[in-house]
Amino acid sequence: MSSRRSSPPALLLYADTDRNADQLYFGRFSVPDPFIAVGIGRKKIALVSALEFGRARKESQFNEVPPLEEYQARARKRLRLPAVGPAEVIATLARERGVRAFRVPADFPAGLAFRLQELRLRIEPAAGALFPAREIKSDTEARALAEGNRCSALGIAAAEDVLRRARIVRGRLLFDGRVLTSERLREAVDVACLRGGAMAQNTIVAGGDQACDPHCRGSGPLKPNQLIIVDVFPRVMATGYFGDMTRTFLKGTPSDAQARLVATVRAGQQQALRQIRAGANGKVIHNGITQAFEAAGFPTKREAHGWIGFFHGTGHGVGLEIHEPPRINRGDYRLKRGSVVTVEPGLYYPGLGGCRIEDVVQVTATGVRLLSRFHYDWVIR
Amino acid sequence: MSSRRSSPPALLLYADTDRNADQLYFGRFSVPDPFIAVGIGRKKIALVSALEFGRARKESQFNEVPPLEEYQARARKRLRLPAVGPAEVIATLARERGVRAFRVPADFPAGLAFRLQELRLRIEPAAGALFPAREIKSDTEARALAEGNRCSALGIAAAEDVLRRARIVRGRLLFDGRVLTSERLREAVDVACLRGGAMAQNTIVAGGDQACDPHCRGSGPLKPNQLIIVDVFPRVMATGYFGDMTRTFLKGTPSDAQARLVATVRAGQQQALRQIRAGANGKVIHNGITQAFEAAGFPTKREAHGWIGFFHGTGHGVGLEIHEPPRINRGDYRLKRGSVVTVEPGLYYPGLGGCRIEDVVQVTATGVRLLSRFHYDWVIR
Repeated sequence: MSSRRSSPPALLLYADTDRNADQLYFGRFSVPDPFIAVGIGRKKIALVSALEFGRARKESQFNEVPPLEEYQARARKRLRLPAVGPAEVIATLARERGVRAFRVPADFPAGLAFRLQELRLRIEPAAGALFPAREIKSDTEARALAEGNRCSALGIAAAEDVLRRARIVRGRLLFDGRVLTSERLREAVDVACLRGGAMAQNTIVAGGDQACDPHCRGSGPLKPNQLIIVDVFPRVMATGYFGDMTRTFLKGTPSDAQARLVATVRAGQQQALRQIRAGANGKVIHNGITQAFEAAGFPTKREAHGWIGFFHGTGHGVGLEIHEPPRINRGDYRLKRGSVVTVEPGLYYPGLGGCRIEDVVQVTATGVRLLSRFHYDWVIR
Repeated sequence: MSSRRSSPPALLLYADTDRNADQLYFGRFSVPDPFIAVGIGRKKIALVSALEFGRARKESQFNEVPPLEEYQARARKRLRLPAVGPAEVIATLARERGVRAFRVPADFPAGLAFRLQELRLRIEPAAGALFPAREIKSDTEARALAEGNRCSALGIAAAEDVLRRARIVRGRLLFDGRVLTSERLREAVDVACLRGGAMAQNTIVAGGDQACDPHCRGSGPLKPNQLIIVDVFPRVMATGYFGDMTRTFLKGTPSDAQARLVATVRAGQQQALRQIRAGANGKVIHNGITQAFEAAGFPTKREAHGWIGFFHGTGHGVGLEIHEPPRINRGDYRLKRGSVVTVEPGLYYPGLGGCRIEDVVQVTATGVRLLSRFHYDWVIR
C-alpha cells in the first residue's frame, strides 16, 4: 500500500476561503484571495503571497508554506517564461514532488484546469463532494453551528422586539414615529447578528405576497395583520459556520385562514422532526409533508404566475456553506448520522401570504438533536 | 456579418451572484445559488429554479427565463437519463439553439466544463476578464462606488469616535469601562456600515505589530501610543459595489518615528494621486513610491520572518469585486480612463508599527476623481 503506484492522486485547490468552503475546510485558514493548496498523502502545502505568508505559517493547518515568490522564480526559470501564473507554479511544484495527476473540486476554475492539462498534468474533478467528510459534523462543528443559530435567534428576537414595540396606526405599522419597512426590520436583525459575532447576508424580511416568493428579500412598508417571514442565516466570523432559522410573525390579529396556514406548517415541521434519523429516506419525509399539507387543504401546484403551496425542499445541509449536502427533498437519499440539516417546510399562497418555520438539527441514530432554539409564538398584538 | 458561421461563440455562466461578480454583472439579478445563464448574440437567457423564477422575470436583465423544470424534463427525455444536472440541461438548450461552443469565464467550474466536453460542446475559457468592460466604470457605477466609500467612511468615523471617547488608564485603553479590543472597535465599524446600507466583511482593525501583517484582521487589546490600521471595505447591499478605505490612527502621543512613518505614507499616496491619469504606467507609479519611501529612510526587503517596508501593490481595481483588474504594482500596465482603483501605499516595520492610507479614485484623462472622502488627522489625544 505504500508503493508510489497505489497512492491516490494529489489534491489541488485554487480558491479564496471567503467564497470556497472546501478551501477553508482544508487549511482552516482565512485568505480573501485565491491561493494554491495541495495535498500529497497526509501533507498539506499552501503557496500564498507575501501578504499571507506569516499568518499561514502561524495559524493554518498547512504543514508546509514555502515562499510563493521562490516557486514563481523557479517556474520562470524552468519554463523560460518572463511571467508565470498559478498553473506554471503548480506544474513546477508537481514536477518537484513527482505528482502527475490532481484531484480537484468540481468547482475548480476551468481556465486553470485547461492550462494544467496543457502542461501535461491529469486533472480529475470530483464527481460529488471533494471532502465527503464535510457532511458529517464533529461535536466541535455542531457547537459552531449551534453558535450560528444562537446568532440567528438574536436576529429573530430583535425582529420580534421591533414588531412588539411597533404601533398600528390607521392600517399602518409605525416604529419610532416612522413607517416600519422590511429594510428597517432587516437592519435590526443584521445588527443583532453582528453584535453576536456573525455576519448576516441576504436576510429575508418579507411580508404579505412578497413572502410568497421564497427568495424575495422583502422591501417597503410592512403591514399589520399580514404574515411576515423572517429568515436569518448569518455566518459566524470566528469559525465560518452558519446559522439558519426562520420564524413567521404577524403583528395585529390573524384571520382563521392565516392561523390554519401557520398551524399546518408547524405541524409539518414537527412531523419531519419526528421522522428524521440516521437511515431515514429524505424523500419519504418530504413527500409526507407535501401530502399532509394537501390533506389539510393546502395543495402544491404550478399556476400561471408561478408555484403555490410547498414548492421548495424540506431541508438542506448547513455547515461552512449555507446550502450544502444533503438535501431533504423529492430526491432519494438516506440521512446519515452526524449530518446537520435545516427543517423548514413552508406554504405560500398569494392573497393569503406565506409561512415558513425553520430550525437546524443534527441527525442522530434515533432522531435529532436540536441546534437552534427560539419559541414558536407568532402573533404579536 | 449576420451569417451563422461568423457569430462569436455563445456565452455561458454557471454561478451564484453572491460569490460571482460576472454573473451579477451579466443579469443584474441576485441569486444565492448557482444558476445557468447563457448569452446568444444580444439575447440573455437564465434558467433558474422555481424559487427564483418569478423574481427573475420581473427584476432581471434576462430577456428569456424559460422554466428550468421543462428543460430538465426535455433533457431527461432526449438523453434517456433518470436524472439530469446542469450539464445535460445546458446541452439540451445548446442543441435547440444551434450552439456548439461556449465561451466561459476562467473560473467556470471545471467539473461542469469537462462534462460539457463529454456532451460534445466546445468550452473556451476566457484568457483574461470575461467582460473587459467591467474595468471601465460608467457614471452609475462610479456613483455606486462612491456610495460604498460613503459607507466605508461611516465605519472609519465610528472607529475614530470610539477612539476619541476611549480613555488611557495606566497604559491601557478603556472604553465604556472595559478594555478596548480590536474586536470591539471592529464591531462599531461594521455596525456603522450596516446602518449605512453596506455589509462589511473582514474589516481590519489591527494595532502595533499585528498591523505589520497587512491581512491580519487584528485581535485583543488595542494600546495607547500605537499605530492602529482601520481598513473598511463594505459591499453596498442594494447594488453589490464595494467601498475600500483605510486610515491609520494613534490614540495618545506619537513618537517622532511614528510621525515620520505616517507622513511618508501620506506623501507617497499624494505622489501617486498626482501621477495617476489615463495612459500612466502603474509600474512607474508603484516603483516611484517604493523609491520615495527608500529615500525617506523606509526600505523594503524580506527578512527572516517576512517582508518589511512596502511589500504590497499601490492599488487595485474595485467594483462588484473588492479586488479586480487593474492592479497598480510592479506589473507593466497602462491605466485606462474610467477605471476605479484604490491608492493605498503602506509601510510596515515590526517594533515601530504599520501605516496604510487608502482612498478610491476614478481615472480621468487628466488625473483622478476622488470617490472617497475622509480627513487625514491621525492623532487622537
